[in-house]
Amino acid sequence: MKKFDVIVIGGSAAGLVSAMTGKAHYPDKSVLLIRKEKDALVPCGIPYIFGTLDSSDKDVIPLGGLKKAGVEFKQDEVVDVNREEKVLKTASGEEFQYDKLVFATGSTPYKPTWLKGSDLENVFSIPKDKIYLDAIKEKFNSMKKIVVIGAGFIGVEVSDELNKIGKNVTLVEVLPTILGRAFDVEIAERAQEILVKRGVSLKTGVAVKEIVGDGKVEAVVLENGERIEADAVVLSMGYRPNTKLAADSGLELNKLGAIRVDSYLRTDDKDVLAVGDCAAKVDFITRKSTPIMLASTAAAEARMAGMNLYNLSIVRTFIGTVAIFSTAIGEIGFGAAGVTEEEAKRSGFEVMVGRNEGVDKHPGTLPGTKKQFVKLIVAKDSEIIIGAEVIGGESAGELINVLGLAIQNRMTVTELYTTQIGTHPLLSSAPTKYPIIKAAECIVLRKGCKK
Amino acid sequence: MKKFDVIVIGGSAAGLVSAMTGKAHYPDKSVLLIRKEKDALVPCGIPYIFGTLDSSDKDVIPLGGLKKAGVEFKQDEVVDVNREEKVLKTASGEEFQYDKLVFATGSTPYKPTWLKGSDLENVFSIPKDKIYLDAIKEKFNSMKKIVVIGAGFIGVEVSDELNKIGKNVTLVEVLPTILGRAFDVEIAERAQEILVKRGVSLKTGVAVKEIVGDGKVEAVVLENGERIEADAVVLSMGYRPNTKLAADSGLELNKLGAIRVDSYLRTDDKDVLAVGDCAAKVDFITRKSTPIMLASTAAAEARMAGMNLYNLSIVRTFIGTVAIFSTAIGEIGFGAAGVTEEEAKRSGFEVMVGRNEGVDKHPGTLPGTKKQFVKLIVAKDSEIIIGAEVIGGESAGELINVLGLAIQNRMTVTELYTTQIGTHPLLSSAPTKYPIIKAAECIVLRKGCKK
Repeated sequence: MKKFDVIVIGGSAAGLVSAMTGKAHYPDKSVLLIRKEKDALVPCGIPYIFGTLDSSDKDVIPLGGLKKAGVEFKQDEVVDVNREEKVLKTASGEEFQYDKLVFATGSTPYKPTWLKGSDLENVFSIPKDKIYLDAIKEKFNSMKKIVVIGAGFIGVEVSDELNKIGKNVTLVEVLPTILGRAFDVEIAERAQEILVKRGVSLKTGVAVKEIVGDGKVEAVVLENGERIEADAVVLSMGYRPNTKLAADSGLELNKLGAIRVDSYLRTDDKDVLAVGDCAAKVDFITRKSTPIMLASTAAAEARMAGMNLYNLSIVRTFIGTVAIFSTAIGEIGFGAAGVTEEEAKRSGFEVMVGRNEGVDKHPGTLPGTKKQFVKLIVAKDSEIIIGAEVIGGESAGELINVLGLAIQNRMTVTELYTTQIGTHPLLSSAPTKYPIIKAAECIVLRKGCKK
Repeated sequence: MKKFDVIVIGGSAAGLVSAMTGKAHYPDKSVLLIRKEKDALVPCGIPYIFGTLDSSDKDVIPLGGLKKAGVEFKQDEVVDVNREEKVLKTASGEEFQYDKLVFATGSTPYKPTWLKGSDLENVFSIPKDKIYLDAIKEKFNSMKKIVVIGAGFIGVEVSDELNKIGKNVTLVEVLPTILGRAFDVEIAERAQEILVKRGVSLKTGVAVKEIVGDGKVEAVVLENGERIEADAVVLSMGYRPNTKLAADSGLELNKLGAIRVDSYLRTDDKDVLAVGDCAAKVDFITRKSTPIMLASTAAAEARMAGMNLYNLSIVRTFIGTVAIFSTAIGEIGFGAAGVTEEEAKRSGFEVMVGRNEGVDKHPGTLPGTKKQFVKLIVAKDSEIIIGAEVIGGESAGELINVLGLAIQNRMTVTELYTTQIGTHPLLSSAPTKYPIIKAAECIVLRKGCKK
């Protein structure tokens, strides 16, 4: 039986980063990564294989980094974990002994088995599975009308990409707005406007009653009676942690079905860690369990786990999910960090809100200038920033990282207001009107801020 | 004699922001802004009036904001300040009484009077003066060969813009590299490569001996004997604070000729403040006097001054110049914050340096993907981040603001390494390889980092 110091199960973002970080910090330890899939896809790149990338081959995470880091790789499926003996069994019949084990088994699309017709032919989901995705991409070629159910990030991005390649796309969401977990209504509405302008047909605030068809999908029927013709349906109703293997090995799961971990990413077995979508998460602000799954969170957890495999460090602990999102619809970027105003209130915070709209270059007469909008959510008692949302051009992705860092550093709104920033005509807003600073100012002034 | 509670002298970034912030925080006070110029230009936009904007009219700071804020405006020149009587005299003969006075008198281009030929016709500089700039822009129309002397940000940006509109541009710099104050050699060299590729002829590490011509400029002669034919010369050898008025009123200047201020931006007269290019600056990291002039620093100081006009606040103090720069050459963005490695060492820091090169989208197969390079400079004793430099695409301007915030928050390299970031295929690098995190990792691992 082969023995490794560290074995990582799963090889997407969380698995790869924990294996490589572990090896980097403990170069004398042998590290093995086992995963089912030959090729792992860049998870956030998946919606783009349908249009912008036009091929899943362009979205493969190369294994070169893993090999270069000195991590061994095996394509196989772990079918049993015996924690008492510290032994794994794989589908191919091999056994491996481990000293430290990391679960990075990811998540799979939620299947609404209660939804009539969800088992019809041409009802698809978006798993992180290259072979499956290649097959549906191929099928889409001969299809025109596609209904996407669920308007989280995956649903919105897939809709926009399918629309981009000429499909007739209808996106259905039961909540009042799209991207409702990340954005307050006022921002989500702007995203909707753009999406609709680009050609996606949008149905919000309405549930799907059933998917109908004779063997194959023919249409989606909504609760309000509306019938939408469909050659295919894409279910994008969230993901669930892959934790059967962990549960079977006796590890404790939380209510959401994720593996319980502490802030060193250890499970209740001190030699077994869990990272990424399969690991339980606590929100940095609300301290509640959160189902938010992000590759960036996964990578941060994985780094922490890799570092803490053998020697714990009090300065290398996971502080909870800050939930920094970004996306782009056409040329417009959207970002969010921390909690929305709505979530903050629902969680029991008294908040102050600041808003500012400016431009992403200066002067705004420069070609390619886009509007830039910032919303700040600040806890009333401490004046600490607990949430932020932005709209802008291509720089919106890093702009939200500025605010994500402010949230993680527990900066007060006055600290943000008095912060120095760098600006340049072609790259950012004006120093006199930088929307982050102006949004902070309107809170500091207690004047109330315009919408 | 008219009386105002607050009078601000000067109406570029620092003057406008201090007047408006003061009025916002003290709405019952009357605020007057006096400036010589009818139109003030967005200072960082000035190089772009020659090409991208193609008109200084597009670079004017509108006065609407000032009026809307309730600040009175007067176009006039203050010629005398009597601090004992608290009275100003203007060129038009008016007198104004003030309670609080703010100097925001800016800076003017350094004139190398020692340089032979610098007084010839068609030797220009780049003052923040719309009328002058319009005149030289007009003259450039009939000129082909332009030599720019001094490769700081203004020199580089003006060269790139003049090159863009078809001029034959030679940029001369006495230091070994361009942009040497903001960037270490390795980064500056990349900027040089791009600038040269775009068509600017570059002469670095060589001084100008003289400018020659019979009345009008004909050529620039370098110390190495080389002669560069020129229809015009642009001197961009830095700026000097406009402080004659302040000095005449008896205010104390520092060695660099700037008005001494404390961290509330007050001069040695408690009712007189100074902000922006005319105010003395201390570097946030080295704590040395610094001649760095940035509109973003000016705006931050101005906010602080406006807030502290009447009621001081210990949480609203200026911490020193963090010196966050950004620029773009073609489609490539450059940013710097804090100190360079070279400056850190020269100032007495023992440092650790981390580097990482990735891409600004992910997967890197996406159209429009640019390389993204990050260099971190970390103090060896405390492991606090004291400097950062980046190269990237359009998001480089906000990426350096992420690092600027890390520096201002005195984050350690481990704190940065364990930070959560948000990523998106179209907007940023991959979560697994985010160059800021990877540059921090190579320092944490003490492995030495590749160039």
